[in-house]
Amino acid sequence: MAKPKIVILGGALSGPTAAAHARETDADAKITLIERAKAISYAVGGLPYVLSGEIVTRADIVPHGPEFFRHDYDIDIRTGVSVERFDAGKRKVYTSDGVIAYDTLIYALGAGSVLPAVFGDGAANLSFLRNPAHLRTIDARLQAGARKVVIIGGGYYGVEAADCLARRGLEVSLLERGDHLLPEFTPAAAARAREALLAAGVDVRVGVSVEALVRKGKRIVALELGGGGRIEPELILVTAGVRPRTEMFVAAGGEVRADGSILVDERCATNLDGVFATSICVSHSHAVTGEPVWTAQASDADKTAQVAGTNAAGGEARLQPTLGTAIVRAGALQLARTGLTTLGGPLDAARVQVSGHSRDPFFVGSEPLELAVYYSRESERLLGAEVVGHGGVDKRIDVLATAIMGELTLSRLAGLDLAYSPPYSLARDLVNAAGVVGVQARSLRVWELDEFAKRDGDTLVVDLRAKAQRKRQPLPDAQVMELADLPKHKAALRKREAVVFVCETGRTAYLAARTAAQLGCRGAGYLSGGLRPATGPQPAG
Amino acid sequence: MAKPKIVILGGALSGPTAAAHARETDADAKITLIERAKAISYAVGGLPYVLSGEIVTRADIVPHGPEFFRHDYDIDIRTGVSVERFDAGKRKVYTSDGVIAYDTLIYALGAGSVLPAVFGDGAANLSFLRNPAHLRTIDARLQAGARKVVIIGGGYYGVEAADCLARRGLEVSLLERGDHLLPEFTPAAAARAREALLAAGVDVRVGVSVEALVRKGKRIVALELGGGGRIEPELILVTAGVRPRTEMFVAAGGEVRADGSILVDERCATNLDGVFATSICVSHSHAVTGEPVWTAQASDADKTAQVAGTNAAGGEARLQPTLGTAIVRAGALQLARTGLTTLGGPLDAARVQVSGHSRDPFFVGSEPLELAVYYSRESERLLGAEVVGHGGVDKRIDVLATAIMGELTLSRLAGLDLAYSPPYSLARDLVNAAGVVGVQARSLRVWELDEFAKRDGDTLVVDLRAKAQRKRQPLPDAQVMELADLPKHKAALRKREAVVFVCETGRTAYLAARTAAQLGCRGAGYLSGGLRPATGPQPAG
Repeated sequence: MAKPKIVILGGALSGPTAAAHARETDADAKITLIERAKAISYAVGGLPYVLSGEIVTRADIVPHGPEFFRHDYDIDIRTGVSVERFDAGKRKVYTSDGVIAYDTLIYALGAGSVLPAVFGDGAANLSFLRNPAHLRTIDARLQAGARKVVIIGGGYYGVEAADCLARRGLEVSLLERGDHLLPEFTPAAAARAREALLAAGVDVRVGVSVEALVRKGKRIVALELGGGGRIEPELILVTAGVRPRTEMFVAAGGEVRADGSILVDERCATNLDGVFATSICVSHSHAVTGEPVWTAQASDADKTAQVAGTNAAGGEARLQPTLGTAIVRAGALQLARTGLTTLGGPLDAARVQVSGHSRDPFFVGSEPLELAVYYSRESERLLGAEVVGHGGVDKRIDVLATAIMGELTLSRLAGLDLAYSPPYSLARDLVNAAGVVGVQARSLRVWELDEFAKRDGDTLVVDLRAKAQRKRQPLPDAQVMELADLPKHKAALRKREAVVFVCETGRTAYLAARTAAQLGCRGAGYLSGGLRPATGPQPAG
Repeated sequence: MAKPKIVILGGALSGPTAAAHARETDADAKITLIERAKAISYAVGGLPYVLSGEIVTRADIVPHGPEFFRHDYDIDIRTGVSVERFDAGKRKVYTSDGVIAYDTLIYALGAGSVLPAVFGDGAANLSFLRNPAHLRTIDARLQAGARKVVIIGGGYYGVEAADCLARRGLEVSLLERGDHLLPEFTPAAAARAREALLAAGVDVRVGVSVEALVRKGKRIVALELGGGGRIEPELILVTAGVRPRTEMFVAAGGEVRADGSILVDERCATNLDGVFATSICVSHSHAVTGEPVWTAQASDADKTAQVAGTNAAGGEARLQPTLGTAIVRAGALQLARTGLTTLGGPLDAARVQVSGHSRDPFFVGSEPLELAVYYSRESERLLGAEVVGHGGVDKRIDVLATAIMGELTLSRLAGLDLAYSPPYSLARDLVNAAGVVGVQARSLRVWELDEFAKRDGDTLVVDLRAKAQRKRQPLPDAQVMELADLPKHKAALRKREAVVFVCETGRTAYLAARTAAQLGCRGAGYLSGGLRPATGPQPAG
């Protein structure tokens, strides 16, 4: 029997990973990887951190060069080769280096940036940030003295780039057309990211688009913004408009979703016979909703690469569903999300919010942390989470993602046996606390800020905040009480249909609502997350 | 109906937590808490870190004083009151402040240190480290100029104390009678802790006991050690001999286990009617083995306190089983464990070991990390884990503990959607990698170091290490090969019943074993964890 021939298109990270797994599955197969750039196996996600200097050398983001794969894995690596098209019927790939026949094909071309129309064909001082060549372009500009950078697009890539370039000491503007940064996050969390970037010196503008350009020679010297603003950048980084690079797949008869991504099944197979897909150009099932989702996350791509590589080589691997888990740094702030982070819907999602610290609060370096856990009101199963804070965010989001995959409920979350020692955590970690509060709040009404804003005159608002805070942010319709005095107000509390307790963080208010319920107040509730002191500019959206 | 009377014995942390949950369950109950010391609600686990200066002031380890509980929770706090005994039949507590009747009692007296016989009645320069009073004694000695400290006992408390006092710049000796430090850890991990403490300047001695003392006035001026050593300490800290403080429970007719702990059911009830128990004096069920286990962890105590408090007040709460999760710092090293960390046994536990980094390896501050995951060979369900490294250990152990509670298998672990961004993690986190390697290694024989040491002459050892390392730690019976050359040795590999590949970390060896298996070698295996370069003194045990 002839050796099976496996051809892989794309060499960033998923391609080489798929190649390695194919080789580990079949020691005999002829495996060819085609990449149009010179480099393979580079981490797109690492590029901004080369700019900030946190990833020290250019070579560092190329962990395994072509030689490693050629030598240790016997992969025929063809760099600098362009693929023109492939024919899924004839099982042939047409390249600048000739025609290559395959038995199975792995499509791993990732995603690319599409330049917004206003920028035309681009400019000498405009770049994407998707591969090592872009990094060289940017570096050359910065070496030449560019100090004023405008970043177009406030998604993950834009926020990371803004954060990293501000760390490098540059003057950074971040422009986002939409209502808020980071569309995968809740508007409240996105507003926190914006505040944190502003605090780090980034000129963040949301709800703003580029209407016109001023060019001078090959360079863009000014951007005219909608609403009348004007910025004169020395360097423009476009991170908006990232799209799955699936044109060639479509041309071969492949089906893609509206967002351009390829929907793979749990074997990473596509609608084309013999064609598997991986990298950040694919969609797959969401663990909570069951719906296909395009996450564009490297961690997801790594998983599809393993599965595609193994199955393309005749092995048996199955993809786990995704949660769209992600983490992003914005100045001093860390923001992370996983699973479903919307209220209501078919799963009747509710939310519990707690705030606390990353480690024992009296330990040096303990950082504030806020956690929102989404759960099904009926089953109390966890559905999603959002974590925002200055430290320990990565730990909590990973624990919560794992808890969701384990189908844990609020009470199981409360009882999770996590590791305690003062340098690392608390005897009751905030993850446990979310479970504890969630379980205990079952019989209480949890008010979200937007509901609270729309309260009617029949609702008794009880203000438990300190005097200074009451003065700064008055609640004219509220009755001021102290937690310890609630029993005195027993009769008044029992009379009302709806009572909402309000404090700074939600914690005291929650205790008060519990006590009121004990006292026979059937309409007791509390304002989730508290009435936060305004710490910075309000969100635009 | 008369208000229910709840009496709580013990005020460190579990007592106040139980009191708060009792109050949240019953707003009317009369709740009394009795504590013989003056302070309540202090964190025993925080004491060493006051000594190191990482918890800055004494007041800081007393987050909520008596006034907080009196005022906000309406708890009758009686500090400075000794309990003499209680009568479970008459439901009365006899105290230095009179007799108190109860409907339900919560026993929360924690654990205390028992002085080893050789130390007689103690000495002016000898202390435990269990409460704020001990801290004052120790501080007074240090203020008076003591520099040479001997710590007796190498469990969690002893290791934490040694680590913290060394950080304070003192001359610290740590004496452990047993074979190795940290009995809850594997000997290999314990040996790493020992190396790390030695590197931090701690004089660690294992397998050593104090045979005799030299006293001078009220002080102990020298310790004569078994085997002939002698130490002249200025201060002696005894952390060994921690025992549940359950004498009063036993005197009232309560049943305890051989280790002195009270076995509670999932309601935290004891064998005495109306008596609930919490704090680090209780045992409860292990999530993996189902057997009772005394973990003495504050995180467990916090959970039993919530359950005991709620149920004592007539509520309904159920305890989740424990995993014995724990983390400890030893110099620059962090060590953590969860669940079952032994091989074989009724669950036929196997282990997969991987090593890597805490975050993107090219990112500043990325730290080496090693992970051992235990799983059931039959079901591939996770059973336990041990994590050792210089950063990010707390995150991985918490994710693994959560994965065990979610009954995840190796393949689900491989597919876990964890948050990736270079400052925090890797696209394939080491937790995922353990799952990936575990799944792929199924068909291979995984050699543990002790098996490898006992290999017979029929086993082909293939050495894949670099030349320098082969020279430093020779394997005379091995055949040297390179991964890429395995196909050349196909015939030789297929002939052998057992082939074990060896490299520095286990990673290349694992790849080689996979390739060999592909080439038809049915006896392919690899040395798990690799043949580690000796980096410090070898363990005594």
